[in-house]
Amino acid sequence: MAQIRLYVDHPLGPQERVSLSQDQAHYLFGVMRLAVGANVFLFNGRDGEWHAQVIAASKKNGVLNCKVQTKSLQLPPDLWLVFAPIKKDRTSFIVEKAAELGAARIIPMQTEYTQSANRVRQDRLQAHALEAAEQCGGTYVPEVAALQKLTTILDTWDSKRWILFCDERKVDKPLILPTNNGPWAIFIGPEGGFSSKERDRLNNMECARTMSLGPRILRADTAAVAAMTLWQHALGDWT
Amino acid sequence: MAQIRLYVDHPLGPQERVSLSQDQAHYLFGVMRLAVGANVFLFNGRDGEWHAQVIAASKKNGVLNCKVQTKSLQLPPDLWLVFAPIKKDRTSFIVEKAAELGAARIIPMQTEYTQSANRVRQDRLQAHALEAAEQCGGTYVPEVAALQKLTTILDTWDSKRWILFCDERKVDKPLILPTNNGPWAIFIGPEGGFSSKERDRLNNMECARTMSLGPRILRADTAAVAAMTLWQHALGDWT
Repeated sequence: MAQIRLYVDHPLGPQERVSLSQDQAHYLFGVMRLAVGANVFLFNGRDGEWHAQVIAASKKNGVLNCKVQTKSLQLPPDLWLVFAPIKKDRTSFIVEKAAELGAARIIPMQTEYTQSANRVRQDRLQAHALEAAEQCGGTYVPEVAALQKLTTILDTWDSKRWILFCDERKVDKPLILPTNNGPWAIFIGPEGGFSSKERDRLNNMECARTMSLGPRILRADTAAVAAMTLWQHALGDWT
Repeated sequence: MAQIRLYVDHPLGPQERVSLSQDQAHYLFGVMRLAVGANVFLFNGRDGEWHAQVIAASKKNGVLNCKVQTKSLQLPPDLWLVFAPIKKDRTSFIVEKAAELGAARIIPMQTEYTQSANRVRQDRLQAHALEAAEQCGGTYVPEVAALQKLTTILDTWDSKRWILFCDERKVDKPLILPTNNGPWAIFIGPEGGFSSKERDRLNNMECARTMSLGPRILRADTAAVAAMTLWQHALGDWT
């Protein structure tokens, strides 16, 4: 049987008692049919992963008792993903993949060509990031920020953070991986790409670098995964 | 207005007349509201991309006239993606991404841990690959093969084709990109990974190489995109 991993917003440590929310109790005891004595793995984004045992179980609540730490906290590299929301499923997908691939922070941005229908529910996206961490053995959950305008993001940009900007017009240019150490952010535009004005502004920033992603035009969600993969290989914790 | 690109199973060349299927006529004239004189871009996987004009349009059929070639045929590198089907949406996603990222052939495989509920409809998956090519400016559509057992695939394997095998047990090992030139296939296991027997058999093949995909455990669909991205960067047409 697969391990059950659960994110809890509660300190974790030896003999720490963790009370479950109604949703969590429903999931563990109603859906997964766990009983008193069952093993669960908990993480809270701060204290690593802990093996815990169910000591009280009912339909609407329950208590777990932490036993031993099974993983220490593993922070991802200091990489942000800044992306323009697209259709609902694909936006959820981007957030899930960013959490799996090891982003430290996820920022939805509104660009000129971002469809206004593509509103984002910050709480739902945060839940996707959390679920991805539960499924993938992560001990850290990246924060999903509120939607911000690209202009606002750039107005207050810390120039010490490099920007990796995937420029669709660079299709057919050779792929050059980034080499500068330090904090980074990957920017992924919407369907239709960045506007000329946005592209010019990004290109004129001293901290910005462009990257091509091969000779085919990638959908925004594909580009996000490909760019994060290449960044992790070049500068992150994959190598 | 975005360019409309359409895959047709018809030869393309100067003044070639292309009759539309009922579905295509419905899409162009019903959904997209095109009329006689409108511009469409056609490809058939063999003759590159052609600019064509609508010369007859009705609810159930229509004719296009090819004018000039706008792209020559761009074949992907000789890379196959061999993957175990997972849940329906994620399987469709893998096929879509494989077509975007430049796989030459896509083969669904049945492994020991592949859930039997994850049946695949070959025709639907082929349609996803085709739609991905339409959307992403491709001129080639990878073939989606019928589901085959992993044991059958390996019994008849051409040892000249390298296998890149993403072994979950290599989490925490450094990522080493493949370097051998020649035809390749990436193997992606199901949720739960390959069985020990399957892993041993793959590891014992002289043409097999393993790759780690970072310190976090990736879902199968994420692993497929990440592995293809890294292969394209190392040996494919991205660099």
